[in-house]
Amino acid sequence: MTTTWTSRSKAELPTGLAARLAFRAGLDVPSTVGVAPGFVQANLVVLPRADAHDFLTYCLRNPKPCPLLGFSEPGRWDIPAIGADLDLRTDLPRYRVWRDGVPVDEPQNVAALWRDDLVGFALGCSYSFDDVLAEAGIRLRHAELGVNPPYYVTTIATTPAGRFAGPLIVSMRPLSGADAIRAVLVTARCPHAHGAPVHLGDPAAIGIDLQRPDGGTELPLEAGETPVFWACGVTPETAIRHARPAFCITHMPGAMLLTDLRNSAMALP
Amino acid sequence: MTTTWTSRSKAELPTGLAARLAFRAGLDVPSTVGVAPGFVQANLVVLPRADAHDFLTYCLRNPKPCPLLGFSEPGRWDIPAIGADLDLRTDLPRYRVWRDGVPVDEPQNVAALWRDDLVGFALGCSYSFDDVLAEAGIRLRHAELGVNPPYYVTTIATTPAGRFAGPLIVSMRPLSGADAIRAVLVTARCPHAHGAPVHLGDPAAIGIDLQRPDGGTELPLEAGETPVFWACGVTPETAIRHARPAFCITHMPGAMLLTDLRNSAMALP
Repeated sequence: MTTTWTSRSKAELPTGLAARLAFRAGLDVPSTVGVAPGFVQANLVVLPRADAHDFLTYCLRNPKPCPLLGFSEPGRWDIPAIGADLDLRTDLPRYRVWRDGVPVDEPQNVAALWRDDLVGFALGCSYSFDDVLAEAGIRLRHAELGVNPPYYVTTIATTPAGRFAGPLIVSMRPLSGADAIRAVLVTARCPHAHGAPVHLGDPAAIGIDLQRPDGGTELPLEAGETPVFWACGVTPETAIRHARPAFCITHMPGAMLLTDLRNSAMALP
Repeated sequence: MTTTWTSRSKAELPTGLAARLAFRAGLDVPSTVGVAPGFVQANLVVLPRADAHDFLTYCLRNPKPCPLLGFSEPGRWDIPAIGADLDLRTDLPRYRVWRDGVPVDEPQNVAALWRDDLVGFALGCSYSFDDVLAEAGIRLRHAELGVNPPYYVTTIATTPAGRFAGPLIVSMRPLSGADAIRAVLVTARCPHAHGAPVHLGDPAAIGIDLQRPDGGTELPLEAGETPVFWACGVTPETAIRHARPAFCITHMPGAMLLTDLRNSAMALP
């Protein structure tokens, strides 16, 4: 079945746990945008123990694109610190399975593929800070249009760790000057979700042509708007393509892991 | 005598009090930039009691251009909360005397003009946040060139109080994207010195032509730079021109009141 949560009344909106249980039971949604508002959403990366140390190092060296929320013990599918009764094998709407750095399948669960050497990583994601920005009264055109914001490969290199390396990928939101200032302040308080922007203004300064996004939907600037660029979760995906691990599982783009963490509690004072 | 403090070694640099005593003794400097580093500098406005309530209201309604540091009891020339042994009549390098909203004199002290109905207001000034930005490692072209940053009259109206009214005036600093983001964060912690910017990016959105500053020195944008606009202390001066009080004293532009307050202690955590 395919449905959206956003059409429900606020009282019916699920918690992170309720959403996980629904996905575990087979609920299929194209996007987790708007699911369990206020709860932190996460990118998922699952790697064999042999690759896990380098990937963990990569995350710690690149905290803006890869904000580490938690990771599992080798072989275990739970991460108690971020969610009760969490099962990484079944609790996301859809997964992507990678072999040698190439996506090969997009199943609804990965129970049959689980191995006792796998480590699951949960990384903060921009869906959480879009939540925070919207609550701060900042208009987000991509949300109004119901599309994903455009993302771009930059000329900024991430700090490598082992075979994990590659360019910093950024998403772009066009904002008025006053909203850009407010967005810097609001997102700086959210290191769990990419934190403050990495650039604003001239796209060419970081090797970007606004009209040629590498993904998402182009959002032409309107009068008075400045492009504001945040580190993006496509960065670790690109590092995985670069590293070509023999086996890997991630979330399907747009279909995130819902956690029990609350954005309000994760934000810095 | 005319000299600069900035050529001295750090150990010799004066405190706010030492600077005030030197100016009281007759030291004349064209600018207080770099004097008593780390100490908060202030714009001065002195008005008769009859106008003081409206001006105080104007400051409280427009805290970004008019960040109120303190004000004196009617007739008194001290403000103990911001400086020990402070004498508003003598402790600034130079003053401007206004009659009916028009500058008529620029004396080194105003002891002979003092009246027992005068109230002195100390308002935070951008010299303090330039200090903070420089300490945060942000390059400021106007400081490198030894000029004042350009300022502009905007199409944004301040909130009037009595006869005090007028446009918001902003100063502009051209910054790289990364520095603009850092500058937003650093200056937001300094509400005592104009706080976070009021605009960044498209100058036309607030009625500005960058090539036509209303004062200061034009700073053409270099590649990759975004113009960042902060509320400016010329705003209350413009409100005074608009209100045309029968009598008023201010600092001479560039020649500020040094306080005993420290930027580091005034910044929000």
